Amino acid sequence: FRTSSNGCEYRERVLTMDTMNPNVKRVEYAVRGPIVQRAVQIERELKMGIKKPFTEVIRANIGDCHAMGQKPITFFRQVLALCSYPDLLEDGKFPEDAKSRARRILQACGGGSLGAYSTSQGIEMIRQDIARYIERRDGGITCDPDNIYLSTGASDAIVTMLKLLVSGEGMSRTGVMISIPQYPLYSATLAELGAVQISYYLDEDNCWSLDISELRRALQEAKKHCSPRALCIINPGNPTGQVQSRQCIEGVIRFAAAEKLFLMADEVYQDNVYADGCKFHSFKKVLFEMGLEYSEKVELASFHSTSKCYMGECGFRGGYMEVVNLDPEVKVQLTKLVSVRLCPPVPGQALLDVVVNPPQPDEPSYDTFIKERTDTLATLAEKANMTQEILNQVPGIKCNPVQGAMYTFPRIHLPPKAILEAKLLGLKEQTPDMFYCMKLLEETGICLVPGSGFGQRDGTYHFRMTILPPKEKLKIVLAKIKEFHQHFMAQYS
Amino acid sequence: FRTSSNGCEYRERVLTMDTMNPNVKRVEYAVRGPIVQRAVQIERELKMGIKKPFTEVIRANIGDCHAMGQKPITFFRQVLALCSYPDLLEDGKFPEDAKSRARRILQACGGGSLGAYSTSQGIEMIRQDIARYIERRDGGITCDPDNIYLSTGASDAIVTMLKLLVSGEGMSRTGVMISIPQYPLYSATLAELGAVQISYYLDEDNCWSLDISELRRALQEAKKHCSPRALCIINPGNPTGQVQSRQCIEGVIRFAAAEKLFLMADEVYQDNVYADGCKFHSFKKVLFEMGLEYSEKVELASFHSTSKCYMGECGFRGGYMEVVNLDPEVKVQLTKLVSVRLCPPVPGQALLDVVVNPPQPDEPSYDTFIKERTDTLATLAEKANMTQEILNQVPGIKCNPVQGAMYTFPRIHLPPKAILEAKLLGLKEQTPDMFYCMKLLEETGICLVPGSGFGQRDGTYHFRMTILPPKEKLKIVLAKIKEFHQHFMAQYS
Repeated sequence: FRTSSNGCEYRERVLTMDTMNPNVKRVEYAVRGPIVQRAVQIERELKMGIKKPFTEVIRANIGDCHAMGQKPITFFRQVLALCSYPDLLEDGKFPEDAKSRARRILQACGGGSLGAYSTSQGIEMIRQDIARYIERRDGGITCDPDNIYLSTGASDAIVTMLKLLVSGEGMSRTGVMISIPQYPLYSATLAELGAVQISYYLDEDNCWSLDISELRRALQEAKKHCSPRALCIINPGNPTGQVQSRQCIEGVIRFAAAEKLFLMADEVYQDNVYADGCKFHSFKKVLFEMGLEYSEKVELASFHSTSKCYMGECGFRGGYMEVVNLDPEVKVQLTKLVSVRLCPPVPGQALLDVVVNPPQPDEPSYDTFIKERTDTLATLAEKANMTQEILNQVPGIKCNPVQGAMYTFPRIHLPPKAILEAKLLGLKEQTPDMFYCMKLLEETGICLVPGSGFGQRDGTYHFRMTILPPKEKLKIVLAKIKEFHQHFMAQYS
Repeated sequence: FRTSSNGCEYRERVLTMDTMNPNVKRVEYAVRGPIVQRAVQIERELKMGIKKPFTEVIRANIGDCHAMGQKPITFFRQVLALCSYPDLLEDGKFPEDAKSRARRILQACGGGSLGAYSTSQGIEMIRQDIARYIERRDGGITCDPDNIYLSTGASDAIVTMLKLLVSGEGMSRTGVMISIPQYPLYSATLAELGAVQISYYLDEDNCWSLDISELRRALQEAKKHCSPRALCIINPGNPTGQVQSRQCIEGVIRFAAAEKLFLMADEVYQDNVYADGCKFHSFKKVLFEMGLEYSEKVELASFHSTSKCYMGECGFRGGYMEVVNLDPEVKVQLTKLVSVRLCPPVPGQALLDVVVNPPQPDEPSYDTFIKERTDTLATLAEKANMTQEILNQVPGIKCNPVQGAMYTFPRIHLPPKAILEAKLLGLKEQTPDMFYCMKLLEETGICLVPGSGFGQRDGTYHFRMTILPPKEKLKIVLAKIKEFHQHFMAQYS
């Protein structure tokens, strides 16, 4: 207890900004940062009847498919309902294939209940189903269920792998290569772990492609002050929407092998490929097709999730990673580490099981399943195309084709006067693109994320926008952005 | 690439035991440790037809209620099924109260779907429901929904709070006081974070009660080599099953206030109180009843979960924490930190909502709900009693009453010859109680956790056993332990 200047006693808190874990301070996560907090406030203000130039906030800041009106896949939800309340297994209304999936999942659960813990690595039967799914995806290349770890969304597994990888102090502190722009989970986790972020820039002029010479440049520079040990790739790209060519992936693998880097491939958008001539190639498949020299040596962890693709089930926090060539002793440590958090959410595991084991042609739910999946992916492709077309019509906005994933990351050319005004506002976070996005939010209700939250080349400005709003609403959003941008340019030119 | 002795090239791995995060090596989690891994192997061997002196493995190692045959609460699962597959809302078979809960939850979800992300802190409506629940529990003491953070089981929230608290190096490295015996999540997390564990011993001779003078001793000693900043309490106790008196809690709070310690109260077993004269007192309530001197000053985080109590829904990974007197700036940091993992699993949030907002007397599901809850808790109480009674009949086993929670932690007196043999086996982990439990597993199929996994006074040996097997099976388990123990004593005396 201390006595303050006005004589009354107060107790200093134990946990303050001064005593808090300093790494936490360095963590930033723009996707849910200040602009989203302001969006929440505005929603409350609208509810309270405060007049705005718009009637609703449109959240194009986060890849939250169902929140934007995308419908869940019927079959998946039927199986989840059956697993949640098995009395429904007696109900004639549910199709037999949903029932048989649910029975099979429940048999693999302790006490036949979703409420039991699973093994920490995830339910064995589900890991087997995932392994077969990966084998089908990769043209028969073997997948060992013991190399699969289920997780709480992909984020959890990514954090776990990074946690294992980070060690050393000073010059020997682990450095991790991440793309710029990147998905801020990576920078946030590296900050929290006190690891060194090694930024390599994607080539905006070439559709956000990855250039091996840029990897080399970034690595050489980093070697002067840390110990680079891992290389993270997001393909299809977030926030940039590019889909990597097979050739590019081969180059990355060769680079990782030559430079002794652990590869982390974030492939959560693997079904979200829209552009003609683009195809998803898994790092695992390419690695194994490059011959033993690579397939027996390069260490790879790749990540997938129930949150994206055509299912978009973010709330269930389902996900998995596959590890390849992981040191067996390290694998024991990994299994031990994940056991501390007991197990990934079992409903998410169940959902993952139906994702990797969907209705087959001879089953009653097949036609509906195929129709729902096809429609969802076709609509996304249409919206990807519409987004780039309309935005590219706006003078001062330029965006690459949305080849895949769920976002566009257009470059916005901001007049010097606007950049100056942002700087004059003086807030630490008030980068010019934050200034732009905040103004857009206040004037139109559209919530985007400034490019600075993902990283961008100095002097360039962007925003990330999802392509998820329903088609008619997306058209309105794009028209509003167009109008806002023109007005903004006029105001600051 | 290096050349090995036999002339062929091999590549050293990037991630090995030598390069891995050294803190991960130090993590131990006995509840799923070597003995459980052996249990899994034995199960496989039984399936393969290998003959054993038993026909099934009985897992009394982990508080996994449903896996041990406890039935889910019907109402909760109805609501979850309705939320998972809202078409069922049109189904006449579901009671109206389940439907209205489900509708209300879905309205609070983005796009009316469990598949949407929630806000990172958890769905606002659910936080409001939790706040009202806490107010009812604590006799009207105010609870602010903004102080509630939903989590992926209680473990997740405990790890997050510890993460915020740990900083400094050398003498100023954060020390965290935990009970011995403890639930190994605490020691594991402190090891991972590189924090200093400060052990205070519970008083086995006094029903595992907490003695303030022991807290003082532990703290004084710790101050010589670290900076003590937090005090963790588990009440009702895990693995020790004691229920703290109000007086004891007051003492702990006074101690924390005087010594400037952040309090962490793990109260996940709050409904699991069985012994006559014992009552659960929340730290929050006691703190607020001690007057402004404490209620405005002591920083407290308390934790709850859907995994224990009468619901036992471990697989859903639902949980929350309430923070009290948290520095507002730190709170912003906490909210930012949890936003990186996006949101806790939404089905777990939905489940938590019905736990805190169960059927009311005027609702159709009320009678069934009360009956199920009462039966489950009564059965647990009966099993708690039976466990202590039977174990105390065995010469060389002594256990305290199981006042609460789901475990007994009996002391076992091992003959010197057994202790010697364990040591001769030479494995690092082969403590005498591990030796004992491993032998028990091999001979009877019963899977317990050795006391060394939770910590115990030097030279004493224990095991943790859950009281969860069904009554008839529990009787058999206890009889088998009795027989095994007598045989073991004879063999080594």
